[in-house]
Amino acid sequence: MTSLDIDRLGRRAEAMLDELAAISEEPDRLTRRFLTPEHKRAAHLVAQWMAEAGMTTAEDALGTVRGHYAMAGEEAGANSVPRLLIGSHIDTVINAGKYDGMLGVVCGILAVEHFRDLGRRMPFAIDVLAFGDEEGVRFPTVLSSSAAVAGAFEPSWLDGRDRDGVSLRDAMQAYGLDPAGIPAAAMSRDEALAYVEVHIEQGPVLEHADVPLGVVTSIAGQFRTRVTITGMAGHAGTVPMGLRQDALLAASEMMLAAEAIAKAHPEASMVATVGQIGVKPGAINVIPDRVEFVLDLRAAADAPRHKALDQFLRKAEALAAARGCAVAFETYHDCPTAACAPWLQDQLAAGAGSLGLNPPRLVSGAGHDGQAMARLTDFAMLFVRCKGGISHNPLESATAPDMGAAVATLIRFIEDFRPPARAA
Amino acid sequence: MTSLDIDRLGRRAEAMLDELAAISEEPDRLTRRFLTPEHKRAAHLVAQWMAEAGMTTAEDALGTVRGHYAMAGEEAGANSVPRLLIGSHIDTVINAGKYDGMLGVVCGILAVEHFRDLGRRMPFAIDVLAFGDEEGVRFPTVLSSSAAVAGAFEPSWLDGRDRDGVSLRDAMQAYGLDPAGIPAAAMSRDEALAYVEVHIEQGPVLEHADVPLGVVTSIAGQFRTRVTITGMAGHAGTVPMGLRQDALLAASEMMLAAEAIAKAHPEASMVATVGQIGVKPGAINVIPDRVEFVLDLRAAADAPRHKALDQFLRKAEALAAARGCAVAFETYHDCPTAACAPWLQDQLAAGAGSLGLNPPRLVSGAGHDGQAMARLTDFAMLFVRCKGGISHNPLESATAPDMGAAVATLIRFIEDFRPPARAA
Repeated sequence: MTSLDIDRLGRRAEAMLDELAAISEEPDRLTRRFLTPEHKRAAHLVAQWMAEAGMTTAEDALGTVRGHYAMAGEEAGANSVPRLLIGSHIDTVINAGKYDGMLGVVCGILAVEHFRDLGRRMPFAIDVLAFGDEEGVRFPTVLSSSAAVAGAFEPSWLDGRDRDGVSLRDAMQAYGLDPAGIPAAAMSRDEALAYVEVHIEQGPVLEHADVPLGVVTSIAGQFRTRVTITGMAGHAGTVPMGLRQDALLAASEMMLAAEAIAKAHPEASMVATVGQIGVKPGAINVIPDRVEFVLDLRAAADAPRHKALDQFLRKAEALAAARGCAVAFETYHDCPTAACAPWLQDQLAAGAGSLGLNPPRLVSGAGHDGQAMARLTDFAMLFVRCKGGISHNPLESATAPDMGAAVATLIRFIEDFRPPARAA
Repeated sequence: MTSLDIDRLGRRAEAMLDELAAISEEPDRLTRRFLTPEHKRAAHLVAQWMAEAGMTTAEDALGTVRGHYAMAGEEAGANSVPRLLIGSHIDTVINAGKYDGMLGVVCGILAVEHFRDLGRRMPFAIDVLAFGDEEGVRFPTVLSSSAAVAGAFEPSWLDGRDRDGVSLRDAMQAYGLDPAGIPAAAMSRDEALAYVEVHIEQGPVLEHADVPLGVVTSIAGQFRTRVTITGMAGHAGTVPMGLRQDALLAASEMMLAAEAIAKAHPEASMVATVGQIGVKPGAINVIPDRVEFVLDLRAAADAPRHKALDQFLRKAEALAAARGCAVAFETYHDCPTAACAPWLQDQLAAGAGSLGLNPPRLVSGAGHDGQAMARLTDFAMLFVRCKGGISHNPLESATAPDMGAAVATLIRFIEDFRPPARAA
């Protein structure tokens, strides 16, 4: 086991993130959407770093930059090489922070660089993947670039258009990519040993627990259910309390009921959120007759999530009925839980353990490329503490020592990586 | 006591309301704002009806049409004539119904017409007043025309502007009115014996009680309090329920608390309403960190209203604190209760009683010209059942028999009207 200069690794990571963050569509804030010229500039910078770290580089049909660090004894142009996949994304939200996504790519490059510096090859290749469509802010798709690697790209996605009316197909061509090459972007299941991603937590759990790293158990499954309540409008002064059918008060009870249901399932890391609400007619002195909100319900496992949604729908119906209101539901989004492979979780935890860390296990409430990569191979994630749990915001922040610990953990993990015996 | 053809009176009222409703700023719906050309056309029609009913007519500085039915033995041009005031307004909201306001003017005219037909004079004059600024939809003022009659017009109101930038002063001049004449519009306290107004209920109480008429006990006092809650934003997926400071859930609890407080005071006819709510940042997947709503709190008496607001503020503070949120309050509107004179209530009830009706007493949750006229003299109101409690809407509806009963009640009331002995 080589000694690792964690501080140096953290400072390296920070410097690289700063360099990447300078590439933005907007002068005063970081915005880098999929297939923009700035995405291409960031991809070139990443490819250059990969090459400097001893990798051969390629760009697939979705613009994913792929750095390949050959395995011990690998022949140039070998047809099927078993490989450990390490990746994340280099696109951002509008007015983003500089850690979300980019940190995972940078950690992969720094880990490979470590082995290159030692002249060390593993009994498997290492591919670092820099995806371009994780945030889903430009096209109606999300995770299209990791889906292509996983062989799960849906051709209909090519027709999705951005707000300027540009289709994904046209944007790919403008970027210099060939949609016909998408099938070839799919990796084979035999080659892919596992997919591992380092990412900032985007939540407050690790900071609250005062630890730098955590091992993700799953990416939460998610429902989005539109709730529409219909009551009866009336004059705020003239309708006695007992004769009202107030849709906003019914909604208030429903939101509190959703909270109570989620709080009753901490073992499933359940969270329920209502982030916006529409009230009609929307005058200060008129009793609301129509209220609409979307319940965002997530959990670490699908069974309790389904049970909780059923519980909420029944409760909401009873609450509406008690007020003489009607309620309608539309669950327009149901994304299953993506479980991280226990053997990978254990090996990531062991890597951190070799540095004297004891990372807690936690659920990822946010979505990640691992959801798509799970179609191809086992995956796991290492979370890095971020300040105040803040993400998708210029205030997003992770410390250099924490990032250094993440790179070091990844190095230890790679040193000891043992894929499980496969069924024939 | 003469016999009254209630059905005929109701049909007359309906026909007059239809004729007035045809005068609108907009072709397909009824909108007639203060000091518009349509206001002037409606005022001319009302003055014509007044003249046909045996009244002399005048227009005051605010455009209020005043019909005067002389008392027994009144000398033309007499200086001070004791008079019973009967009125309401002929302006409307945008996309209005045809009963709100106009019914009270029409009832007054039909009552006078009844006495004129009998050649009967009372020992007091009857003035029918058709106000023009009750809805307050054009200028920042409201009740400015009745305030002028009551001698309570504030000169600063003249500078208020409509959405086109036209000041009240300029609009008066364009209408042909002279702002210098406002002081002369004020009636003397010696002349004004009482002010009585017939109006649709604008609420569901009479319909619910299955009675055509009700006697108003007071116009509810009203608070409007802006409530601003500050919590902490966060990702809907990554912040565990126990670490949240959700401003929308705090607001939900506060709105339900306001409802509970109002419901606990049915004896004060208390009503609490939240008709609109603003949520920031306002994304489906972000925990709200700032929520703002206005609590509209009304009651039949000021003491319980003040007590209820205090109770709400204390409760809201506790609810915010329990969630780690901050809350701020701004009570920007505090309109005291305007009590209807018991002696006038009793005489109105007796008038209805002579027709075999037993009108319930009820609070007016909405505002009326009586609030301004209370500065001048005792006032009371007779409410007429309206369909579904709907008002400020083309669906606003009262039946001809109910309107006929209101005119007949007003006639009986006038026949037996006895002002209380005044202190010297």
